[in-house]
Amino acid sequence: MKAAFYEGHESIATGSCTPVNPSAGQVQIRVSHCGICGTDLHIFHGNMDHRVKLPQIIGHEMSGTIEAVGDDVSQWTVGDRVTVRPLDHCGACPACKAGHSHICMNLKFIGIDSPGAMQELWTVPAHTLHRLPSNLTLEQAALIEPLAVACHDVRLGEVKAGEYVVILGAGPIGLLIAMVTRAAGANVLLADVNPFRVELASGLGLNAVDARTVDLVALVNEQTGGAGADCVFEVSGAKAATETMTKLPRTRGRIVIVAIHPQPTPVDLFRFFWRELRLVGARVYEAQDFNQAIDMAASGTLPLNKIITKTVPLEGLAEAFREMESGGEVMKILVRCPA
Amino acid sequence: MKAAFYEGHESIATGSCTPVNPSAGQVQIRVSHCGICGTDLHIFHGNMDHRVKLPQIIGHEMSGTIEAVGDDVSQWTVGDRVTVRPLDHCGACPACKAGHSHICMNLKFIGIDSPGAMQELWTVPAHTLHRLPSNLTLEQAALIEPLAVACHDVRLGEVKAGEYVVILGAGPIGLLIAMVTRAAGANVLLADVNPFRVELASGLGLNAVDARTVDLVALVNEQTGGAGADCVFEVSGAKAATETMTKLPRTRGRIVIVAIHPQPTPVDLFRFFWRELRLVGARVYEAQDFNQAIDMAASGTLPLNKIITKTVPLEGLAEAFREMESGGEVMKILVRCPA
Repeated sequence: MKAAFYEGHESIATGSCTPVNPSAGQVQIRVSHCGICGTDLHIFHGNMDHRVKLPQIIGHEMSGTIEAVGDDVSQWTVGDRVTVRPLDHCGACPACKAGHSHICMNLKFIGIDSPGAMQELWTVPAHTLHRLPSNLTLEQAALIEPLAVACHDVRLGEVKAGEYVVILGAGPIGLLIAMVTRAAGANVLLADVNPFRVELASGLGLNAVDARTVDLVALVNEQTGGAGADCVFEVSGAKAATETMTKLPRTRGRIVIVAIHPQPTPVDLFRFFWRELRLVGARVYEAQDFNQAIDMAASGTLPLNKIITKTVPLEGLAEAFREMESGGEVMKILVRCPA
Repeated sequence: MKAAFYEGHESIATGSCTPVNPSAGQVQIRVSHCGICGTDLHIFHGNMDHRVKLPQIIGHEMSGTIEAVGDDVSQWTVGDRVTVRPLDHCGACPACKAGHSHICMNLKFIGIDSPGAMQELWTVPAHTLHRLPSNLTLEQAALIEPLAVACHDVRLGEVKAGEYVVILGAGPIGLLIAMVTRAAGANVLLADVNPFRVELASGLGLNAVDARTVDLVALVNEQTGGAGADCVFEVSGAKAATETMTKLPRTRGRIVIVAIHPQPTPVDLFRFFWRELRLVGARVYEAQDFNQAIDMAASGTLPLNKIITKTVPLEGLAEAFREMESGGEVMKILVRCPA
């Protein structure tokens, strides 16, 4: 069967591989669609070579239909439409014992630390599955994983109805956070330096501005009567955003760190002291975030289809990476796995 | 009457001034003792010249007895023993309206933005007063203000019984945080680079280590079964501590920023993401923190007397500052105001 392989620095091949029969507790899924994540781009760039094993089948934002089930799997049947929460925890470390198994200290992220979804038949532990409602297309369902990230971020940010929220970075996760916070009844301001992203967000009815030309601090103060924002999501990974993020919140306002900042970056701790700000890091998701994401997607109220800018065959993966790194007119690209 | 004045860069004079009669809503206090705060040292060094008016009477960690009351003051009587919560808020800004008047956006800190307690008779708004129980000496009561800082910090850090707490910096506030967290049933580890402070803390039965010779991260991991600390208080203001603070907490552990970091400093935001850490800034106190501090001090269970390393007359203020900046054998110095 066909699969897409990362073969080392910026090299992708499409080739054949042997399906893995599901062992006890596992299921085999016929993959339908798989979204390309920023993490996949990091892998493509060689930044995660310490974690992947070459050649590595990548991908984790997926949807599909169960093809086979292993022994001891009673809750799932061939033909069930599913998505996967791609986290495999150890169950024994202090984080797992404290109930934080989603950030297990020995966490295996399926699709990075083990083979991913960009293949015809993908075998995973049954405990990772979430059932898809019938009114959700498999194309839409490939967005459940990033939508669950957004649900997790918003939950940790404790956003409430009527609050004023600023999102720094309007890529796929930033847009999904905007959708989730808007659905929670918040007033949302999105900022990005990429005009295509700002325009796409505006087209979704979101309040979006170009961070290069707008004085964000002045705008937020003006729109909040001088109080500042209730919650700020840092989703850009940009150094400029870590300078701005502490200037925006009100007294006791919150900052949620969603983006990856590989190096320590200057942060204005005095502002945390002065305004008694709070900061929280948010990583991946828990089961309840997947459940919420599925419910929200199935409700049909989120403009999910509009963030899919392209769907490509498995052979189009390398070109899709080139398009993503161009910073051009791209939001979420889906890979259609072969039938 | 006598007062101590800050006259500009590192210059202190003792001279005479005219008592201020209390207006409506004010009281006049005969000051007994006044502790010297790190903030007073900042003023002495000229770092707060943008806020003080020369010549400035400083001091805000005080105790005393009411000498006179102005009109419309019904709750207080001449002879009442009191301490002052030296915050004067505007009542009209977004922070005040949100219930955060202790960090009012136009906050006047009495003793910095207006005359302080290092004088015989000090006139302040009656709303700043807290009554002292009879079993608390006026010397001990001069420690209520810094103890209220510690109560506020621990409350915002949400420390619970049985938790493992690390305190970076064992000056007066670090020691008081240690006493409050220990009283809350936490296991406390204090770290400082000053051997005198480590020894003084150890003498109080606290688990204290020299941060220059001990591998704090290894020690905390060893003592917590590899989990990490539940809560870390950054009370040192040192850059090295801001590097260490993110390495210590468990998954979803907390960091409380107590110290002042005047410049943005590199912070490992990746660690916040990876372990879903939380950070909160804590500034001054609210009325409930003063109430808690008075109750704790009056209970007699805290070794408060042992952190007072010296009591000097008003004329000894300049020399006391020199002693504090030497980094030598000094913890809390009290000024005895003239009878």
